[in-house]
Amino acid sequence: MQLRYSPASPFARKVVIAAHLLGLKDRIAVTTTDTVNPDAAFLAENPLGKIPALVLDDGEVLFDSRVILDYLDQLSGGRLIAGGSARFADLRLEALADGVMDAALLQIYETRFRDEAGRSPAWVARQAAKVDRALAVLEAAPPSLDAITVGPIAVACALGYLDLRFGGAWRAGHPRLVAWLDAFAARVPAFEATRPA
Amino acid sequence: MQLRYSPASPFARKVVIAAHLLGLKDRIAVTTTDTVNPDAAFLAENPLGKIPALVLDDGEVLFDSRVILDYLDQLSGGRLIAGGSARFADLRLEALADGVMDAALLQIYETRFRDEAGRSPAWVARQAAKVDRALAVLEAAPPSLDAITVGPIAVACALGYLDLRFGGAWRAGHPRLVAWLDAFAARVPAFEATRPA
Repeated sequence: MQLRYSPASPFARKVVIAAHLLGLKDRIAVTTTDTVNPDAAFLAENPLGKIPALVLDDGEVLFDSRVILDYLDQLSGGRLIAGGSARFADLRLEALADGVMDAALLQIYETRFRDEAGRSPAWVARQAAKVDRALAVLEAAPPSLDAITVGPIAVACALGYLDLRFGGAWRAGHPRLVAWLDAFAARVPAFEATRPA
Repeated sequence: MQLRYSPASPFARKVVIAAHLLGLKDRIAVTTTDTVNPDAAFLAENPLGKIPALVLDDGEVLFDSRVILDYLDQLSGGRLIAGGSARFADLRLEALADGVMDAALLQIYETRFRDEAGRSPAWVARQAAKVDRALAVLEAAPPSLDAITVGPIAVACALGYLDLRFGGAWRAGHPRLVAWLDAFAARVPAFEATRPA
Protein backbone atom coordinates (compact mmCIF):
# COMPACT_ATOMS: atom_id res chain seq x y z
CA MET A 1 0.00 0.00 0.00
CA GLN A 2 1.07 3.57 -0.63
CA LEU A 3 0.25 6.37 1.77
CA ARG A 4 0.14 9.94 0.45
CA TYR A 5 1.21 11.98 3.41
CA SER A 6 3.22 14.84 4.81
CA PRO A 7 5.31 14.63 7.98
CA ALA A 8 3.63 17.77 9.38
CA SER A 9 0.05 16.59 8.86
CA PRO A 10 -1.56 15.43 12.11
CA PHE A 11 -4.18 13.50 10.13
CA ALA A 12 -1.45 11.60 8.27
CA ARG A 13 0.40 10.99 11.53
CA LYS A 14 -2.65 9.17 12.91
CA VAL A 15 -2.37 6.70 10.05
CA VAL A 16 1.37 6.16 10.36
CA ILE A 17 1.13 5.59 14.13
CA ALA A 18 -1.71 3.13 13.56
CA ALA A 19 0.35 1.29 10.97
CA HIS A 20 3.24 1.01 13.44
CA LEU A 21 0.96 -0.24 16.20
CA LEU A 22 -0.66 -2.86 14.02
CA GLY A 23 2.59 -4.19 12.59
CA LEU A 24 1.62 -2.93 9.13
CA LYS A 25 4.43 -0.40 8.79
CA ASP A 26 6.41 -2.50 6.34
CA ARG A 27 3.36 -2.97 4.12
CA ILE A 28 2.78 0.77 3.71
CA ALA A 29 5.18 2.91 1.67
CA VAL A 30 4.87 6.63 2.38
CA THR A 31 5.09 9.34 -0.27
CA THR A 32 5.40 12.98 0.76
CA THR A 33 2.71 14.85 -1.12
CA ASP A 34 2.37 18.58 -1.72
CA THR A 35 -1.21 19.65 -1.00
CA VAL A 36 -0.57 23.37 -1.45
CA ASN A 37 0.25 22.81 -5.13
CA PRO A 38 -1.04 19.29 -5.72
CA ASP A 39 -0.20 17.57 -9.01
CA ALA A 40 -2.73 16.01 -11.34
CA ALA A 41 -1.84 12.44 -10.39
CA PHE A 42 -2.62 13.11 -6.73
CA LEU A 43 -5.83 14.96 -7.56
CA ALA A 44 -6.93 11.92 -9.56
CA GLU A 45 -6.47 9.88 -6.39
CA ASN A 46 -8.25 12.35 -4.13
CA PRO A 47 -10.25 15.11 -5.82
CA LEU A 48 -10.30 16.99 -2.53
CA GLY A 49 -6.52 17.34 -2.73
CA LYS A 50 -6.08 16.30 0.89
CA ILE A 51 -3.80 13.93 2.70
CA PRO A 52 -3.72 11.29 3.99
CA ALA A 53 -4.88 9.08 1.13
CA LEU A 54 -4.10 5.38 1.08
CA VAL A 55 -3.62 3.67 -2.28
CA LEU A 56 -4.45 -0.02 -1.86
CA ASP A 57 -2.65 -2.76 -3.73
CA ASP A 58 -5.58 -3.10 -6.14
CA GLY A 59 -5.39 0.62 -6.99
CA GLU A 60 -8.41 1.68 -4.95
CA VAL A 61 -7.79 4.83 -2.93
CA LEU A 62 -9.15 5.42 0.55
CA PHE A 63 -9.53 8.79 2.25
CA ASP A 64 -9.82 10.57 4.65
CA SER A 65 -7.91 9.59 7.81
CA ARG A 66 -10.98 8.20 9.57
CA VAL A 67 -11.87 5.95 6.68
CA ILE A 68 -8.28 4.73 6.48
CA LEU A 69 -8.26 3.99 10.22
CA ASP A 70 -11.54 2.12 9.88
CA TYR A 71 -9.91 0.06 7.12
CA LEU A 72 -6.83 -0.64 9.24
CA ASP A 73 -9.15 -1.61 12.09
CA GLN A 74 -10.74 -4.22 9.85
CA LEU A 75 -7.34 -5.43 8.59
CA SER A 76 -6.24 -5.92 12.19
CA GLY A 77 -9.37 -7.71 13.31
CA GLY A 78 -10.76 -4.80 15.28
CA ARG A 79 -7.78 -3.74 17.37
CA LEU A 80 -7.79 -0.08 16.40
CA ILE A 81 -11.30 1.07 17.34
CA ALA A 82 -12.65 0.29 20.79
CA GLY A 83 -15.25 -2.47 20.81
CA GLY A 84 -18.62 -2.89 22.42
CA SER A 85 -20.08 0.03 24.31
CA ALA A 86 -16.74 1.87 24.22
CA ARG A 87 -16.90 2.27 20.44
CA PHE A 88 -18.80 5.54 20.34
CA ALA A 89 -16.81 7.22 23.08
CA ASP A 90 -13.68 6.29 21.14
CA LEU A 91 -15.06 7.63 17.85
CA ARG A 92 -16.32 10.80 19.57
CA LEU A 93 -12.86 11.34 21.05
CA GLU A 94 -11.36 10.95 17.57
CA ALA A 95 -13.91 13.46 16.24
CA LEU A 96 -13.02 15.90 19.03
CA ALA A 97 -9.31 15.61 18.28
CA ASP A 98 -9.91 15.88 14.52
CA GLY A 99 -11.89 19.04 15.25
CA VAL A 100 -8.92 20.44 17.18
CA MET A 101 -6.69 19.68 14.19
CA ASP A 102 -9.12 21.35 11.79
CA ALA A 103 -9.35 24.45 13.96
CA ALA A 104 -5.56 24.58 14.34
CA LEU A 105 -5.03 24.10 10.59
CA LEU A 106 -7.46 26.91 9.77
CA GLN A 107 -5.37 29.21 11.94
CA ILE A 108 -2.23 28.16 10.06
CA TYR A 109 -3.94 28.55 6.68
CA GLU A 110 -4.82 32.08 7.72
CA THR A 111 -1.12 32.96 7.60
CA ARG A 112 -0.30 30.70 4.66
CA PHE A 113 -2.97 31.85 2.23
CA ARG A 114 -3.51 35.50 3.22
CA ASP A 115 -1.27 38.49 3.63
CA GLU A 116 -1.35 40.37 6.92
CA ALA A 117 -3.99 42.87 5.84
CA GLY A 118 -6.30 40.06 4.72
CA ARG A 119 -6.30 38.18 8.01
CA SER A 120 -9.27 38.12 10.34
CA PRO A 121 -8.45 38.21 14.06
CA ALA A 122 -12.08 37.30 14.81
CA TRP A 123 -11.92 34.18 12.62
CA VAL A 124 -8.63 33.11 14.15
CA ALA A 125 -10.01 33.71 17.65
CA ARG A 126 -13.07 31.64 16.78
CA GLN A 127 -10.88 28.69 15.79
CA ALA A 128 -8.59 29.15 18.81
CA ALA A 129 -11.63 29.06 21.11
CA LYS A 130 -12.61 25.65 19.71
CA VAL A 131 -9.14 24.37 20.54
CA ASP A 132 -9.24 25.92 24.01
CA ARG A 133 -12.61 24.40 24.87
CA ALA A 134 -11.57 20.97 23.66
CA LEU A 135 -8.35 21.15 25.68
CA ALA A 136 -10.32 22.11 28.78
CA VAL A 137 -12.50 19.02 28.38
CA LEU A 138 -9.45 16.79 27.87
CA GLU A 139 -7.61 18.34 30.82
CA ALA A 140 -10.59 17.70 33.09
CA ALA A 141 -10.60 14.01 32.14
CA PRO A 142 -7.62 12.79 30.12
CA PRO A 143 -8.49 9.77 27.99
CA SER A 144 -7.82 6.26 29.22
CA LEU A 145 -4.67 4.63 27.88
CA ASP A 146 -5.88 1.14 28.69
CA ALA A 147 -6.18 0.53 24.97
CA ILE A 148 -4.42 2.53 22.26
CA THR A 149 -7.30 3.09 19.89
CA VAL A 150 -8.27 5.81 17.43
CA GLY A 151 -9.38 8.25 20.12
CA PRO A 152 -6.11 8.46 22.09
CA ILE A 153 -4.07 8.32 18.86
CA ALA A 154 -5.96 11.29 17.47
CA VAL A 155 -5.62 13.28 20.70
CA ALA A 156 -1.85 12.69 20.75
CA CYS A 157 -1.55 13.81 17.12
CA ALA A 158 -3.63 16.91 17.80
CA LEU A 159 -1.40 17.87 20.74
CA GLY A 160 1.69 17.12 18.67
CA TYR A 161 0.40 19.50 16.02
CA LEU A 162 -0.12 22.24 18.62
CA ASP A 163 3.47 21.63 19.71
CA LEU A 164 4.69 21.91 16.12
CA ARG A 165 2.77 24.99 15.01
CA PHE A 166 2.03 26.91 18.21
CA GLY A 167 5.21 26.34 20.16
CA GLY A 168 3.55 24.13 22.72
CA ALA A 169 1.73 27.08 24.30
CA TRP A 170 -1.11 24.66 25.19
CA ARG A 171 1.14 23.05 27.81
CA ALA A 172 0.75 25.94 30.24
CA GLY A 173 -2.43 25.35 32.16
CA HIS A 174 -2.89 21.73 31.11
CA PRO A 175 -0.59 19.75 33.40
CA ARG A 176 -2.67 16.58 33.39
CA LEU A 177 -2.78 16.57 29.60
CA VAL A 178 0.99 17.12 29.42
CA ALA A 179 1.45 14.10 31.69
CA TRP A 180 -1.02 12.17 29.57
CA LEU A 181 0.93 12.91 26.38
CA ASP A 182 4.16 11.83 28.09
CA ALA A 183 2.48 8.58 29.11
CA PHE A 184 1.15 8.08 25.58
CA ALA A 185 4.62 8.64 24.10
CA ALA A 186 6.16 6.18 26.56
CA ARG A 187 3.56 3.59 25.62
CA VAL A 188 3.64 4.22 21.86
CA PRO A 189 7.19 4.58 20.50
CA ALA A 190 5.73 5.42 17.07
CA PHE A 191 4.72 8.79 18.48
CA GLU A 192 8.31 9.98 18.82
CA ALA A 193 9.30 8.12 15.65
CA THR A 194 6.79 10.21 13.70
CA ARG A 195 7.54 13.57 15.32
CA PRO A 196 7.88 16.15 12.53
CA ALA A 197 11.24 17.91 12.31
CA MET B 1 -32.73 11.40 21.74
CA GLN B 2 -32.19 15.07 20.99
CA LEU B 3 -30.47 16.25 17.84
CA ARG B 4 -28.79 19.65 17.86
CA TYR B 5 -29.14 20.81 14.29
CA SER B 6 -29.90 23.55 11.84
CA PRO B 7 -32.12 23.15 8.79
CA ALA B 8 -29.42 24.62 6.52
CA SER B 9 -26.61 22.32 7.70
CA PRO B 10 -25.87 19.57 5.18
CA PHE B 11 -24.15 17.54 7.90
CA ALA B 12 -27.27 17.71 10.08
CA ARG B 13 -29.45 16.84 7.09
CA LYS B 14 -27.53 13.57 6.67
CA VAL B 15 -28.58 12.59 10.17
CA VAL B 16 -32.22 13.56 9.78
CA ILE B 17 -32.52 11.68 6.48
CA ALA B 18 -30.93 8.63 8.08
CA ALA B 19 -33.37 8.83 10.99
CA HIS B 20 -36.29 8.92 8.55
CA LEU B 21 -34.94 5.97 6.57
CA LEU B 22 -34.39 3.86 9.66
CA GLY B 23 -37.76 4.57 11.20
CA LEU B 24 -36.09 6.45 14.07
CA LYS B 25 -37.60 9.84 13.29
CA ASP B 26 -40.08 9.73 16.16
CA ARG B 27 -37.32 8.85 18.65
CA ILE B 28 -35.22 11.92 17.77
CA ALA B 29 -36.37 15.42 18.73
CA VAL B 30 -34.59 18.17 16.82
CA THR B 31 -33.48 21.46 18.35
CA THR B 32 -32.35 24.30 16.11
CA THR B 33 -28.98 25.42 17.43
CA ASP B 34 -27.09 28.62 16.73
CA THR B 35 -23.45 27.79 15.95
CA VAL B 36 -22.46 31.36 15.05
CA ASN B 37 -23.16 32.50 18.61
CA PRO B 38 -23.39 29.20 20.49
CA ASP B 39 -24.62 29.25 24.06
CA ALA B 40 -22.78 27.69 26.99
CA ALA B 41 -25.13 24.72 27.28
CA PHE B 42 -24.44 23.70 23.69
CA LEU B 43 -20.68 24.23 24.07
CA ALA B 44 -20.78 21.90 27.06
CA GLU B 45 -22.28 19.27 24.78
CA ASN B 46 -19.82 19.83 21.94
CA PRO B 47 -16.73 21.92 22.73
CA LEU B 48 -16.17 22.34 19.00
CA GLY B 49 -19.44 24.27 18.78
CA LYS B 50 -20.56 22.32 15.72
CA ILE B 51 -23.75 20.64 14.66
CA PRO B 52 -25.01 17.98 14.37
CA ALA B 53 -24.63 16.64 17.90
CA LEU B 54 -26.88 13.86 19.18
CA VAL B 55 -27.75 13.78 22.87
CA LEU B 56 -28.56 10.20 23.79
CA ASP B 57 -31.18 9.27 26.36
CA ASP B 58 -28.47 8.61 28.96
CA GLY B 59 -27.04 12.12 28.45
CA GLU B 60 -24.02 11.04 26.42
CA VAL B 61 -23.43 13.27 23.40
CA LEU B 62 -22.23 11.99 20.04
CA PHE B 63 -20.64 14.09 17.31
CA ASP B 64 -19.81 14.61 14.46
CA SER B 65 -22.19 13.52 11.71
CA ARG B 66 -20.12 10.47 10.78
CA VAL B 67 -20.02 9.21 14.34
CA ILE B 68 -23.76 9.72 14.65
CA LEU B 69 -24.37 7.81 11.42
CA ASP B 70 -22.13 5.00 12.64
CA TYR B 71 -24.25 4.90 15.80
CA LEU B 72 -27.50 4.84 13.82
CA ASP B 73 -26.01 2.08 11.68
CA GLN B 74 -25.48 0.00 14.79
CA LEU B 75 -28.95 0.83 16.13
CA SER B 76 -30.44 -0.37 12.84
CA GLY B 77 -28.44 -3.57 12.66
CA GLY B 78 -26.11 -2.38 9.92
CA ARG B 79 -28.56 -0.98 7.38
CA LEU B 80 -26.95 2.45 7.02
CA ILE B 81 -23.36 1.65 6.00
CA ALA B 82 -22.73 -0.78 3.15
CA GLY B 83 -21.51 -4.18 4.29
CA GLY B 84 -18.73 -6.47 3.19
CA SER B 85 -16.33 -5.27 0.52
CA ALA B 86 -18.61 -2.32 -0.29
CA ARG B 87 -18.01 -0.73 3.12
CA PHE B 88 -14.95 1.28 2.25
CA ALA B 89 -16.26 2.57 -1.08
CA ASP B 90 -19.34 3.73 0.83
CA LEU B 91 -17.29 5.45 3.55
CA ARG B 92 -14.97 7.00 0.95
CA LEU B 93 -18.00 8.37 -0.89
CA GLU B 94 -19.24 9.85 2.37
CA ALA B 95 -15.80 11.39 2.95
CA LEU B 96 -15.81 12.85 -0.57
CA ALA B 97 -19.24 14.39 -0.06
CA ASP B 98 -18.29 15.67 3.41
CA GLY B 99 -15.24 17.28 1.79
CA VAL B 100 -17.52 19.01 -0.72
CA MET B 101 -19.63 20.31 2.16
CA ASP B 102 -16.54 21.53 4.01
CA ALA B 103 -15.23 23.33 0.93
CA ALA B 104 -18.64 24.85 0.24
CA LEU B 105 -19.04 25.96 3.86
CA LEU B 106 -15.61 27.61 3.85
CA GLN B 107 -16.74 29.68 0.86
CA ILE B 108 -19.88 30.73 2.74
CA TYR B 109 -17.90 31.51 5.90
CA GLU B 110 -15.71 33.78 3.78
CA THR B 111 -18.70 36.08 3.30
CA ARG B 112 -20.17 35.53 6.77
CA PHE B 113 -17.08 36.24 8.84
CA ARG B 114 -15.16 38.77 6.70
CA ASP B 115 -16.00 42.06 5.10
CA GLU B 116 -15.41 42.46 1.40
CA ALA B 117 -11.89 43.85 1.72
CA GLY B 118 -10.87 40.94 3.92
CA ARG B 119 -11.88 38.19 1.51
CA SER B 120 -9.39 36.13 -0.42
CA PRO B 121 -10.39 35.26 -3.99
CA ALA B 122 -7.53 32.72 -4.11
CA TRP B 123 -8.79 30.93 -0.99
CA VAL B 124 -12.35 30.84 -2.31
CA ALA B 125 -11.11 29.56 -5.68
CA ARG B 126 -9.12 26.87 -3.92
CA GLN B 127 -12.25 25.62 -2.14
CA ALA B 128 -14.36 25.92 -5.29
CA ALA B 129 -11.83 23.78 -7.17
CA LYS B 130 -12.22 21.00 -4.61
CA VAL B 131 -15.97 21.05 -5.21
CA ASP B 132 -15.52 21.12 -9.00
CA ARG B 133 -13.15 18.16 -9.02
CA ALA B 134 -15.41 16.11 -6.76
CA LEU B 135 -18.42 16.90 -8.96
CA ALA B 136 -16.46 15.82 -12.05
CA VAL B 137 -15.73 12.45 -10.43
CA LEU B 138 -19.37 12.01 -9.42
CA GLU B 139 -20.63 13.04 -12.87
CA ALA B 140 -18.36 10.49 -14.52
CA ALA B 141 -19.81 7.71 -12.36
CA PRO B 142 -22.87 8.63 -10.29
CA PRO B 143 -23.15 6.45 -7.18
CA SER B 144 -25.30 3.35 -7.16
CA LEU B 145 -28.72 3.73 -5.60
CA ASP B 146 -29.13 0.00 -5.05
CA ALA B 147 -28.82 0.66 -1.33
CA ILE B 148 -29.39 4.01 0.38
CA THR B 149 -26.36 4.12 2.61
CA VAL B 150 -24.15 6.86 4.05
CA GLY B 151 -22.36 7.52 0.76
CA PRO B 152 -25.39 8.36 -1.38
CA ILE B 153 -27.06 10.19 1.52
CA ALA B 154 -24.00 12.42 1.93
CA VAL B 155 -23.75 13.11 -1.80
CA ALA B 156 -27.41 14.14 -1.94
CA CYS B 157 -26.94 16.46 1.06
CA ALA B 158 -23.82 18.00 -0.50
CA LEU B 159 -25.69 18.70 -3.75
CA GLY B 160 -28.64 20.05 -1.79
CA TYR B 161 -26.28 22.46 -0.03
CA LEU B 162 -24.88 23.64 -3.37
CA ASP B 163 -28.48 24.23 -4.47
CA LEU B 164 -29.19 26.21 -1.30
CA ARG B 165 -26.08 28.38 -1.18
CA PHE B 166 -24.86 28.61 -4.76
CA GLY B 167 -28.17 28.78 -6.64
CA GLY B 168 -27.76 25.32 -8.14
CA ALA B 169 -24.99 26.52 -10.49
CA TRP B 170 -23.50 23.01 -10.30
CA ARG B 171 -26.42 21.66 -12.35
CA ALA B 172 -25.06 23.11 -15.59
CA GLY B 173 -22.54 20.65 -16.94
CA HIS B 174 -23.55 17.76 -14.66
CA PRO B 175 -26.64 16.25 -16.30
CA ARG B 176 -26.06 12.73 -15.03
CA LEU B 177 -25.66 13.98 -11.49
CA VAL B 178 -28.84 16.06 -11.79
CA ALA B 179 -30.68 12.92 -12.91
CA TRP B 180 -29.07 11.00 -10.06
CA LEU B 181 -30.30 13.53 -7.49
CA ASP B 182 -33.81 13.36 -8.96
CA ALA B 183 -33.69 9.57 -8.66
CA PHE B 184 -32.42 9.83 -5.07
CA ALA B 185 -35.22 12.25 -4.16
CA ALA B 186 -37.82 9.96 -5.74
CA ARG B 187 -36.45 7.03 -3.76
CA VAL B 188 -35.97 8.90 -0.46
CA PRO B 189 -38.94 11.13 0.41
CA ALA B 190 -37.01 12.42 3.42
CA PHE B 191 -34.79 14.36 1.03
CA GLU B 192 -37.61 16.71 0.00
CA ALA B 193 -39.03 16.66 3.53
CA THR B 194 -35.73 18.07 4.84
CA ARG B 195 -35.16 20.64 2.10
CA PRO B 196 -34.19 23.92 3.81
CA ALA B 197 -36.50 26.83 3.14
